[in-house]
Amino acid sequence: MAQNPERRAALLDAAIEVLAREGARGLTFRAVDVQAGVPTGTASNYFGKRDDLLNQIAPRIYARLGPDPEAVARTLEEPPSKAIVVRFMHELMGRVTADRTGYIALLELRLEATRRPEMREALTAMLRPEYEEAIRFHLDSGLPGDRTTVSVLYFAMLGLIVEHLTTPDAVAADTLDALVDGIVDRVVPEG
Amino acid sequence: MAQNPERRAALLDAAIEVLAREGARGLTFRAVDVQAGVPTGTASNYFGKRDDLLNQIAPRIYARLGPDPEAVARTLEEPPSKAIVVRFMHELMGRVTADRTGYIALLELRLEATRRPEMREALTAMLRPEYEEAIRFHLDSGLPGDRTTVSVLYFAMLGLIVEHLTTPDAVAADTLDALVDGIVDRVVPEG
Repeated sequence: MAQNPERRAALLDAAIEVLAREGARGLTFRAVDVQAGVPTGTASNYFGKRDDLLNQIAPRIYARLGPDPEAVARTLEEPPSKAIVVRFMHELMGRVTADRTGYIALLELRLEATRRPEMREALTAMLRPEYEEAIRFHLDSGLPGDRTTVSVLYFAMLGLIVEHLTTPDAVAADTLDALVDGIVDRVVPEG
Repeated sequence: MAQNPERRAALLDAAIEVLAREGARGLTFRAVDVQAGVPTGTASNYFGKRDDLLNQIAPRIYARLGPDPEAVARTLEEPPSKAIVVRFMHELMGRVTADRTGYIALLELRLEATRRPEMREALTAMLRPEYEEAIRFHLDSGLPGDRTTVSVLYFAMLGLIVEHLTTPDAVAADTLDALVDGIVDRVVPEG
């Protein structure tokens, strides 16, 4: 199996493009090769089976969408506060908006998980630690609120992201920034 | 164009099954005819163009997923309270869980909206009044909270539904009922 890490990442990025544009049924090795501009057979050489390709896409999306650890560390040098949570949530929304394709591909994987148990297991194995880590990070950083705070924040942001990426004008009477502010304001207690 | 309303609804239900099972790319007139067990050409006779079929699916899903108006009216004979909001949200989750297929098909339509502007317009034209109506209903019923309360509740429930339908075990440490309770508890003020 071919192992050049940069080439592997480039193929996964091409797969993310195909997934977002064509849906899960459009994701073939051939489509990934064309998208990546590489010779036919390259993606198949790297991933062997389509399932293996699919299972490696979600971690790649999270690597793309994750915050800069140094920026997070700098922010946490300030005293923990509700204002910091507001900033983190705006930064999260900024990253999602900047990488629409990545997040839409993740939603495609979620729908694929409703059809294929292996996909559901692979996605669950990735998302469960993300959820628990989000809770641990919030509490360990001394940010205001408890486990339920982070849980409700997690779902409200997930819902807002789904809405904003798919039908942004359905709630257009409220701006995206105001919606993020509203979520944090109502869910997170004063520090 | 053929107009039997029951046949039309049955064809839309068949389209919802195909959409949830195969994704948007799998939704063809032929697949709908097979799913509905009707002669080839029937769906095409009813909907003419695939776009017209797609645009009629979302209203059908909402008709399936909506609450029983009489049950809502009975509940509202009690004094408005946070407890009533808890009940409404559990009932919403109950309807979604009972009609997984309908809601997954709606998520497919949302993803299709990221690709096709006409789909985004049709879905927005349906979702925007739903959102405004949810706010109006809450406030007019005297339920506790303001516009932002309903907005945050809307997104938190949307996020929880997406999570529960696609990767239910990712947050399995918390039960679904406890998550619904947590959302209402944190978002809705005491009455």
